[in-house]
Amino acid sequence: MPLKKPTAILLLSCPDTRGIVAEVSKFVFENNGNIIHSDQHTDSQTATYFMRIEWELDGFSVPAGEIAGIFTPIARKFDMDWSLHFSDYRPKMAVLVSKTDHCLYDLLLRVKSGELYAEVPAVIGNHDDLKPVAEYFGTRFEYFPVDPSDKAANERREIELFDSLGIDIIVLARYMQILTGGFVEKYKNRVINIHHSFLPAFVGAKPYHQAYSRGVKIIGATSHYVTADLDQGPIIAQDVTQVSHRDSVEDLIRKGKNLEKNVLSRAVQLHLEHKIVVFGNKTVIFD
Amino acid sequence: MPLKKPTAILLLSCPDTRGIVAEVSKFVFENNGNIIHSDQHTDSQTATYFMRIEWELDGFSVPAGEIAGIFTPIARKFDMDWSLHFSDYRPKMAVLVSKTDHCLYDLLLRVKSGELYAEVPAVIGNHDDLKPVAEYFGTRFEYFPVDPSDKAANERREIELFDSLGIDIIVLARYMQILTGGFVEKYKNRVINIHHSFLPAFVGAKPYHQAYSRGVKIIGATSHYVTADLDQGPIIAQDVTQVSHRDSVEDLIRKGKNLEKNVLSRAVQLHLEHKIVVFGNKTVIFD
Amino acid sequence: MPLKKPTAILLLSCPDTRGIVAEVSKFVFENNGNIIHSDQHTDSQTATYFMRIEWELDGFSVPAGEIAGIFTPIARKFDMDWSLHFSDYRPKMAVLVSKTDHCLYDLLLRVKSGELYAEVPAVIGNHDDLKPVAEYFGTRFEYFPVDPSDKAANERREIELFDSLGIDIIVLARYMQILTGGFVEKYKNRVINIHHSFLPAFVGAKPYHQAYSRGVKIIGATSHYVTADLDQGPIIAQDVTQVSHRDSVEDLIRKGKNLEKNVLSRAVQLHLEHKIVVFGNKTVIFD
Amino acid sequence: MPLKKPTAILLLSCPDTRGIVAEVSKFVFENNGNIIHSDQHTDSQTATYFMRIEWELDGFSVPAGEIAGIFTPIARKFDMDWSLHFSDYRPKMAVLVSKTDHCLYDLLLRVKSGELYAEVPAVIGNHDDLKPVAEYFGTRFEYFPVDPSDKAANERREIELFDSLGIDIIVLARYMQILTGGFVEKYKNRVINIHHSFLPAFVGAKPYHQAYSRGVKIIGATSHYVTADLDQGPIIAQDVTQVSHRDSVEDLIRKGKNLEKNVLSRAVQLHLEHKIVVFGNKTVIFD
Repeated sequence: MPLKKPTAILLLSCPDTRGIVAEVSKFVFENNGNIIHSDQHTDSQTATYFMRIEWELDGFSVPAGEIAGIFTPIARKFDMDWSLHFSDYRPKMAVLVSKTDHCLYDLLLRVKSGELYAEVPAVIGNHDDLKPVAEYFGTRFEYFPVDPSDKAANERREIELFDSLGIDIIVLARYMQILTGGFVEKYKNRVINIHHSFLPAFVGAKPYHQAYSRGVKIIGATSHYVTADLDQGPIIAQDVTQVSHRDSVEDLIRKGKNLEKNVLSRAVQLHLEHKIVVFGNKTVIFD
Repeated sequence: MPLKKPTAILLLSCPDTRGIVAEVSKFVFENNGNIIHSDQHTDSQTATYFMRIEWELDGFSVPAGEIAGIFTPIARKFDMDWSLHFSDYRPKMAVLVSKTDHCLYDLLLRVKSGELYAEVPAVIGNHDDLKPVAEYFGTRFEYFPVDPSDKAANERREIELFDSLGIDIIVLARYMQILTGGFVEKYKNRVINIHHSFLPAFVGAKPYHQAYSRGVKIIGATSHYVTADLDQGPIIAQDVTQVSHRDSVEDLIRKGKNLEKNVLSRAVQLHLEHKIVVFGNKTVIFD
Repeated sequence: MPLKKPTAILLLSCPDTRGIVAEVSKFVFENNGNIIHSDQHTDSQTATYFMRIEWELDGFSVPAGEIAGIFTPIARKFDMDWSLHFSDYRPKMAVLVSKTDHCLYDLLLRVKSGELYAEVPAVIGNHDDLKPVAEYFGTRFEYFPVDPSDKAANERREIELFDSLGIDIIVLARYMQILTGGFVEKYKNRVINIHHSFLPAFVGAKPYHQAYSRGVKIIGATSHYVTADLDQGPIIAQDVTQVSHRDSVEDLIRKGKNLEKNVLSRAVQLHLEHKIVVFGNKTVIFD
Repeated sequence: MPLKKPTAILLLSCPDTRGIVAEVSKFVFENNGNIIHSDQHTDSQTATYFMRIEWELDGFSVPAGEIAGIFTPIARKFDMDWSLHFSDYRPKMAVLVSKTDHCLYDLLLRVKSGELYAEVPAVIGNHDDLKPVAEYFGTRFEYFPVDPSDKAANERREIELFDSLGIDIIVLARYMQILTGGFVEKYKNRVINIHHSFLPAFVGAKPYHQAYSRGVKIIGATSHYVTADLDQGPIIAQDVTQVSHRDSVEDLIRKGKNLEKNVLSRAVQLHLEHKIVVFGNKTVIFD
């Protein structure tokens, strides 16, 4: 991956009013920042304003560590929800898997090639089938079998590990376990799942079997943030492909794998590049 | 449209067994027929065999009117559900509309250009807004307002008209009325609807509003045969397009129009060209 | 079409430097404008900055007619190429046609429904086949047959008509004539063509025949601004669809029509909504 | 991969005439074969008939090794080009690579998962960068650096290796070398390449750079059989994805990788499943 100059990225949402762009861009300009991306959106139904602005740290007169402090009065003035990110920080990503390997391979290959700018300190499996895959990529693998009668115990182990490793984002790469509400709440908008249907069609188990039974002519995959409601979280990315009566359930599964990989990695990339603002149960994607 | 040589088209399904292709192709060959298309499918779950075979009538030694009689013993031998069609018959199509005009224009333009090989003896509206459109294309328009307290009365009028005109296929071109079970049964697998979502997502009313609320990144349209269960009939064709957080409900409606037109006309064309076999609640499409 | 509040739209490009967003947004804010869209792009190869900013005229303290004058010093300071537009002005669109009707119908239907916000004061044909279409939509039709030995004479007639009608944009809706360099220069970046291939594949005549010969598995359509070089102008929009060995040239032509209509209307809409900046032989599309 | 019952697959083309289906299906039926797929196509321009027919060997009264001999008289009668394949034979595939790894990983993962039914006895590189990848999958890697002044010498080495290994199909997985006419002729219709553009656009070197310069809104990838004319061979599969002015050349390369992998593996799968008939410079794909 070519080295890029480090940048600061500000993601914000607030009640829509006049002067937000002017004030934020003035803040960057007066501190000698060079804006390289600026994107905004207004949700007219709720009069909510969204912004993503990215500028080069090189030459910026405020040290990175002091930007948040200096920006806070502006944020307060407009009642912003906001977060500040730096492009030279490599987010720490944990991947949760079961037995299916295609999404794990895809993620680790994209991390290896630099297409996904992240570290993967750990892969956790509720089965140990994919341990060799993690090891091939030089990644630690933890085998945490799930005791169905005490899911919380397993999640405590995971949380402990994630805390010790400083995990920023958790990717469910065809992880066939439902997380508890407490876990999901702790990592709100930081757990990304891939569901193998074009949601909201075919929620729940065995979506390819459902699609086969319904006789659809298109199948899909959906990546979304995980919430306490199964398959109901904010959608980040979706894609579809055509199928026909000639496709058996096995064919749907095979065709779906390509979708799942591409949609999941797309969603992870958008998250890693700080291009997503969650808004209610929807996402604003600044791509 | 270029004139094509007239052909016979045989659509059949039956329990799968050895010798079906051999026997059917022998029937055509021994009567001096030139096969121009032959397609088959086996549903392995139910061991059901499907076939579409098309041959030129030119030079065929059996007159068109006698083919069915001569084929009947073969059909019985294999316990076939079957139908025989002739490409030089122009099916009679009725179009039911409400106030929305884009699907009606699209169908009538495609009939006019010869892309859809059909006659349209009548357009029926439960509103009269689209009367001028029908008239521009030289098509009779009937205004049959629906009395919600007596839907059956309206349908009796329709059935009477369809019978008198010899209607073969009924297209619901954004017709905003639910048909009774009796009507649907009478025209089984001959009523084609366009639903403005990628079914089974967003069944029922206002699918674009539902899609907007759910925050999907893809919207779709689905054309299907109408059954007594709302939006549950066998799917013929589907298509989708990408949307984003920038799209308002109005944008979804606008983008969806392109899908609706293309998907509906595609389904109608498949039906008119005798390329669909309905099987349970699914379709086999020989395209 | 729902009435929207009138807005001002500023399109600009200039050498990239610090402070452009800050200055432009300050200009809008200090005159009490409410920005509803703001989009920007930096071409890093050439260090060129592009911006589209749209704000409500309602409440803006500068009358519409004086905005350009007041903005001029800012434009000069940054050495901008710029243009100012108002959303409540309905651009005047001329459509040039030959014998093929699908793009003309599509454009006029979208104008009629309000999806394309334009007036169509005239349709000009080098054949008179489509006169009834124009008339159905209440649009003037001019039959200007082209004398191949004196193309310029025909274009002089067209220019005279366009001048008298105040034409803003010229759409070639499958117009099978090559325009002279002089004509193209006069209406630079205001003549939009639809070419029935995914350019740069299959430049020139009979692209569907070329596609058939090459055995491609995908066909496309491309809408672009017309320049003096045939089919080489800046591309605005493209789309494709799958084909197979089963598709004859006639099938490609039929499938291509859907693409042509959708791609051309998409390009025209982007132009009418002032979302395109031409940059060398490429386009920046703020959609 | 689920074990399937072994089948025989007959691929044929011949001058179109009456009775071909009847005779071929009779041949299968009279020898007690159960046809599980039968597909045909007639090229009306050249009056050429194409057929793919697949039947279960289980219960077939002719031993696999004798089928060709018994079928030969039928083939002669209709002047057929034909080939006979057996689904339980695992074709031997050689992969040629340079430095780029995504297509190699993709192929080897799909072979590993059983999605591609092939053996890979050797990966050959003109660089040795990808040796560890081959080794991870337990595949022999040969480093054959190319001497530009004596390409033929290198190809002789390759041919010797392929002969000794009984190679059936050669896949160029982003192999950045042009093969000689002699090599291509020897493995006619058995060398599959992936070109990173939607051919015939952007033939030759650096197609993503060409696409960037032209300002296209869609990029693609094309898999084709290699012939002596660079990038001119029969196209097997193509796919595209949307791009915009925001995409740098690096972005096009990144987005293109997904296309390249999927299109190449799709083409290889069609070949391995004996679903392709080459006809002049085009392909008939029985999928």
